Amino acid sequence: MNSEMLKKAVGYKAASFIESGMIVGLGTGSTAKYFIEKLIERQKTENLRIQTVASSTRSLQQAKKGGLPILDINTLNSIDITVDGADEIDDEKRMIKGGGGALLREKIVASMSKELIIIIDESKKSSLLGHKKLPIEVVPFASQATLYKIHKLGWTAYFRKESEDSTKNYITDNGNYIIDINFANPLEHPEKEHAILKDIPGVVETGFFFHLAGRVITSYQDGQVIVTP
Amino acid sequence: MNSEMLKKAVGYKAASFIESGMIVGLGTGSTAKYFIEKLIERQKTENLRIQTVASSTRSLQQAKKGGLPILDINTLNSIDITVDGADEIDDEKRMIKGGGGALLREKIVASMSKELIIIIDESKKSSLLGHKKLPIEVVPFASQATLYKIHKLGWTAYFRKESEDSTKNYITDNGNYIIDINFANPLEHPEKEHAILKDIPGVVETGFFFHLAGRVITSYQDGQVIVTP
Repeated sequence: MNSEMLKKAVGYKAASFIESGMIVGLGTGSTAKYFIEKLIERQKTENLRIQTVASSTRSLQQAKKGGLPILDINTLNSIDITVDGADEIDDEKRMIKGGGGALLREKIVASMSKELIIIIDESKKSSLLGHKKLPIEVVPFASQATLYKIHKLGWTAYFRKESEDSTKNYITDNGNYIIDINFANPLEHPEKEHAILKDIPGVVETGFFFHLAGRVITSYQDGQVIVTP
Repeated sequence: MNSEMLKKAVGYKAASFIESGMIVGLGTGSTAKYFIEKLIERQKTENLRIQTVASSTRSLQQAKKGGLPILDINTLNSIDITVDGADEIDDEKRMIKGGGGALLREKIVASMSKELIIIIDESKKSSLLGHKKLPIEVVPFASQATLYKIHKLGWTAYFRKESEDSTKNYITDNGNYIIDINFANPLEHPEKEHAILKDIPGVVETGFFFHLAGRVITSYQDGQVIVTP
């Protein structure tokens, strides 16, 4: 199965768990977009009645275009269920997220949700985190000094750009920058790296997600789709 | 001595420690403004040659108007010395700052500085922190849910408004909101409250400042000005 088929399989599977009456958090990225696509279809063909909140302007636009009802997140204290992808996940369901640049809103939405369902293909599974780069969101003010502090910790890190050949920094939906960090080695205790980074003034959030994932839906090359509680 | 005289005494005293050649971080608030005022005077009368960076647009404007040379903070990795006020400080030099709404930039500038000199009058001294309200900076996205999480922790908290009779939220220089928290009791271990708050996605920074203060200059009602190393 090709990569798109693997993403579609888990996105569609997750959409089958959504029931009328739910407030649904919409993740961001190439896998979450299939989840949203299926929700739009189910609303049309099965009369599924839900409200949604989006973790990015990109997902918001997809939902809007498809006719999903959208709530103002500032009127909500909690969300019933959120479905989102992950860049990397270990056996304890610790994750690196934010490859798509929406880590902060994804984390806020996840932390408001009664359950966060993670949808991945098997390539995202990892015994230890740290193979994928870790995105962190930083405020633009003095961001050069923030990068300098990260370099002094011994990690390779750089500002994410608008595009590969751009010199302009990527700007998040919150008006901040993203710094991508490459750790030299896999992380035995990523809680440690998270705490060190969060302690730097100017770092808004890291792409580490701990204690947030509920069910994990994984698609495999052989066509299997497995839901892990 | 009245309150303004107490503030002026320490602001001017701090300015006497600044030497030509230094990159100087300018704090924000009613005490820091006297420090900046004296720097402007020393530049004119003593030919003091310094570069400055400001922790708020307010301090930036004062410095600009007075003719102080201003550096773009994004070109700097470190600052020689920063002078700033505090809302409350305990015997271990732990502080609550940000009453003026500039806590995040103040903290970034402080963390870049070889020394942070704190200027206060004696009323700011406290055996335990928590008598003053703690400001935290939060992203606007889902900020209602962020406030809800803080309420669930048992603390009184509310969005700071543009002014007393305004219904509009105060907006920081970074485009975020401020939530002011009233703790019911003095804080034995404010590190705990800081960690709990920083763990909430959407909280950018708290007004707790630990391990940042260098010398503290205090003015007393009887006219004394004491520098504590």
